Amino acid sequence: MTDLETTDRTTLKRLPQRAHFDRDTVNAIIDEAMVCHVGIVDEDGRPVVIPTFHGRDGDDLLIHGSAASRLLRTARNREVCITITLLDSLVLARTAFHHSANYRSVVIFGVPEQITDDDEADHALTVLVEALVPGRSAEVRANTRNEIRATAVLRLPITEASAKVRSGPPVDDEEDMDAPVWAGLIPVETRFGAPITADDMRMDLPPADSATNYRRPV
Amino acid sequence: MTDLETTDRTTLKRLPQRAHFDRDTVNAIIDEAMVCHVGIVDEDGRPVVIPTFHGRDGDDLLIHGSAASRLLRTARNREVCITITLLDSLVLARTAFHHSANYRSVVIFGVPEQITDDDEADHALTVLVEALVPGRSAEVRANTRNEIRATAVLRLPITEASAKVRSGPPVDDEEDMDAPVWAGLIPVETRFGAPITADDMRMDLPPADSATNYRRPV
Repeated sequence: MTDLETTDRTTLKRLPQRAHFDRDTVNAIIDEAMVCHVGIVDEDGRPVVIPTFHGRDGDDLLIHGSAASRLLRTARNREVCITITLLDSLVLARTAFHHSANYRSVVIFGVPEQITDDDEADHALTVLVEALVPGRSAEVRANTRNEIRATAVLRLPITEASAKVRSGPPVDDEEDMDAPVWAGLIPVETRFGAPITADDMRMDLPPADSATNYRRPV
Repeated sequence: MTDLETTDRTTLKRLPQRAHFDRDTVNAIIDEAMVCHVGIVDEDGRPVVIPTFHGRDGDDLLIHGSAASRLLRTARNREVCITITLLDSLVLARTAFHHSANYRSVVIFGVPEQITDDDEADHALTVLVEALVPGRSAEVRANTRNEIRATAVLRLPITEASAKVRSGPPVDDEEDMDAPVWAGLIPVETRFGAPITADDMRMDLPPADSATNYRRPV
């Protein structure tokens, strides 16, 4: 299934069987991940990669930051590449050469626009909080107008995008298959610990539902 | 302590208290992380960010890939930005606005060089396998000359580099401190599951020590 725009940049030259262009695969990776890496080109033509949080609003990726931040000022109306990576397992082959990892990654190219409408920005900030902590926005008060304006939110259409996925066992050459070496996978998992209450709480409240029942979308 | 080169690119304009320029802090983040994101500028001047594995060889960062890969061909002798990010906890404040995360990240700028000497490349490949799976290189046979030459290894001095770290509790404004909202942290941990033996093993071997005792350096 191919429903994203495939361009020279999103097409894999090597290992094309690892590429995926369907929106469901791309969206699932975006939604499960908490961190993305935003690539920009600075004034001197040099690359800069900055980690940040993201949220997905339908077919758009949202990132945000202080209205004063370098990332936000540089990425606005300029070409970016946003990459999201999930590591699923380490792949131990019979030879060092064939060691690998199972992973799911997404690359999105495009030109983000800043959201300038207050209501749209408010909605986008809610999407971003929900992406990091599902259910949290209902537990806190609404954003004030000042808070909305102090944060810049950029919107990048998920159009020129693709996923790259490796899964499965190690693959060795036939001549190494009889080597007396164990081969297999080491699963890599992200776990969330028990909530830690802030020391400066003034009320004796149990941890919020969003924290005690924390889980990523799957 | 400042022992890395501080430049305009590695100096934080906002929240400078989060910046660290000591090699120990930078190295510990590099060593704990399994994935880095490499930013390059393509032929058309647009950013591209590619995830890959890395290893640290003293004061150099190593990345590798097929000698035929776009990343390796483009990054060689060109400006790159390599960013490494570890997420430690989600920070739930009393207001949506002050939600944050505790993280440790490293940014390294520079021009990588390809290792061309076979012995150096062999050593570098061992460093890379050990970075992903400590102890593994002693469990597998040595690399052949063909394997060494099929893989391109780039070496980037960790010189123009800095770390950025947020830790600690949520920070809310005084006017929100009495709100009846729980605030605190949700710890984020990377765990490694029990080894999964490859189906096509021809010998009945227990999982390797490197897999059963798997842990990241801390």
